[in-house]
Amino acid sequence: MSAIILAGKPVAEAIKAEVSTEVAGLIDIHGIKPTLAVVRVGEDPASAVYVGSKVRTAAEIGIGSEHLHFAADTAEAEIVDVVATLNARDDIDGILVQLPLPAHINERRILETIDPLKDVDGFHPVNAGRLLQGHESLVPCTPAGVIEVLRRSGIEIAGKRAVVVGRSNIVGKPMSVLLLQNDATVTICHSRTRDLAAITREADILVAAIGRAGFVRGEHIREGAVVVDVGINSVTDTGAVRELFPDDEQERRLAAINDRGATLAGDVNARDAMAKAAAYTPVPGGIGLLTVAMLMKNTVTAARMRRLASI
Amino acid sequence: MSAIILAGKPVAEAIKAEVSTEVAGLIDIHGIKPTLAVVRVGEDPASAVYVGSKVRTAAEIGIGSEHLHFAADTAEAEIVDVVATLNARDDIDGILVQLPLPAHINERRILETIDPLKDVDGFHPVNAGRLLQGHESLVPCTPAGVIEVLRRSGIEIAGKRAVVVGRSNIVGKPMSVLLLQNDATVTICHSRTRDLAAITREADILVAAIGRAGFVRGEHIREGAVVVDVGINSVTDTGAVRELFPDDEQERRLAAINDRGATLAGDVNARDAMAKAAAYTPVPGGIGLLTVAMLMKNTVTAARMRRLASI
Repeated sequence: MSAIILAGKPVAEAIKAEVSTEVAGLIDIHGIKPTLAVVRVGEDPASAVYVGSKVRTAAEIGIGSEHLHFAADTAEAEIVDVVATLNARDDIDGILVQLPLPAHINERRILETIDPLKDVDGFHPVNAGRLLQGHESLVPCTPAGVIEVLRRSGIEIAGKRAVVVGRSNIVGKPMSVLLLQNDATVTICHSRTRDLAAITREADILVAAIGRAGFVRGEHIREGAVVVDVGINSVTDTGAVRELFPDDEQERRLAAINDRGATLAGDVNARDAMAKAAAYTPVPGGIGLLTVAMLMKNTVTAARMRRLASI
Repeated sequence: MSAIILAGKPVAEAIKAEVSTEVAGLIDIHGIKPTLAVVRVGEDPASAVYVGSKVRTAAEIGIGSEHLHFAADTAEAEIVDVVATLNARDDIDGILVQLPLPAHINERRILETIDPLKDVDGFHPVNAGRLLQGHESLVPCTPAGVIEVLRRSGIEIAGKRAVVVGRSNIVGKPMSVLLLQNDATVTICHSRTRDLAAITREADILVAAIGRAGFVRGEHIREGAVVVDVGINSVTDTGAVRELFPDDEQERRLAAINDRGATLAGDVNARDAMAKAAAYTPVPGGIGLLTVAMLMKNTVTAARMRRLASI
């Protein structure tokens, strides 16, 4: 048996196409061009890449964007002011502050300054609370993307046992809440969970969001489960490649380490998942591709909610 | 084997004693008298009883209170104004709007009008979100009371498997989040859960919050589990008494039905829980007694947070 690959790309493309149509409608019918402001502080190279990708995708599907970049030593109060100004501007629908911020800036203070109606990352407590209470809200992009992949792949969630490994505020917790809202019976596991494998083997749908390459192995996976891998880890050790990846994938993984010094691996051992799961979201090429698409969708949702009072 | 009874009264008394000491300190040292405003609309007799109990308990432990009572036909806008006025008053620390409200008033609108810093019921989305994200917040009283009973009874939560049956915004969801924060491995079950008994039998700690008398039976309970019964249901059928309650309790239950027309039963079959569980919170006399005590605790927490910026 070999798992069906749940590729992120076709799902992300479908969502972007739908959002693009919606944007065109908002512009034509209401004269509203949804616009995203991205705030970046400092010179973290990964952040620069992520922000570039967000701004480029916005342009592709007709969403306006502004990229505000500040020096690493910018004062916290100045970033608060920037966010407050963006909150007040009627032409800005979404505000995203790229994380991580420099150490002298209190991330939570900045994120809580964002108007919840413009909080396209869904990190504001008001949005977290509305999510928990089952009311309309802006939902964190990665877990929202997982639901899209499952739904659009025809995987039923209602009545299934879902197990989420990891309890971060960005993925594990909102993921659990979203699965619950889709009527799964949800278990959330973490570093203090005892006999993890016995619990994860109960899962019809297993979501790994721990941040450790290949942490979820064969012993954790029920034969025939759907395995969703949210982790994105950098692997530099050629020995790990043989352990983590199926035979037919090893050559290009080793080449990647040789060429670029690293290859990306998820939180799930891909070799084991391919052997045991019914379906599996690979890394790269799986859930990671959804995040930017869902950000675009959130930006349009934010524009509708705030400017038209509709979703 | 017969389960240890986890009585709510000594725990509630201990909390009230602690809160009382804390109130005295706030008055003596800071000149702050924590004060609770209770808003009641209409003539629901149960609401009148609950509000009476809250106001009386506040007086007992030195917390100030104001009871604002409005006719059943009061306009929603007027209640919004009342809440806004209470929000603005510096001498009011906690605001509680007694539910249910008359049908013409949008409960959610009223509850979201309450200043989150004065939201002693913990129902505002900001508090729900802070709870989910693991930050300081005002926590709904009933699930917070469950944690107090477990902790003060010496029942370890960390690393245990906890199963919550019911996913209401008032109990099931915040209960799951609190158990997670106490490092349990948490599963949340509901009406769409398949093979419920197999899942609840995995629980070291089983919390029932469904709202159906005796719904959780022997087949749902692992031998030696801790069973927490949050339900409060009215039973009027003498036949049900024989099914729901242990032999030595039936006489006084039948007398209650004879005298008052009804007896209170939890969501757990008490006869089965007494036979299988290691420990069990009875109904009445269990978790229900904690709710008012936790409301008092929240009022003092709210006073500290807002007036002293400390918890």
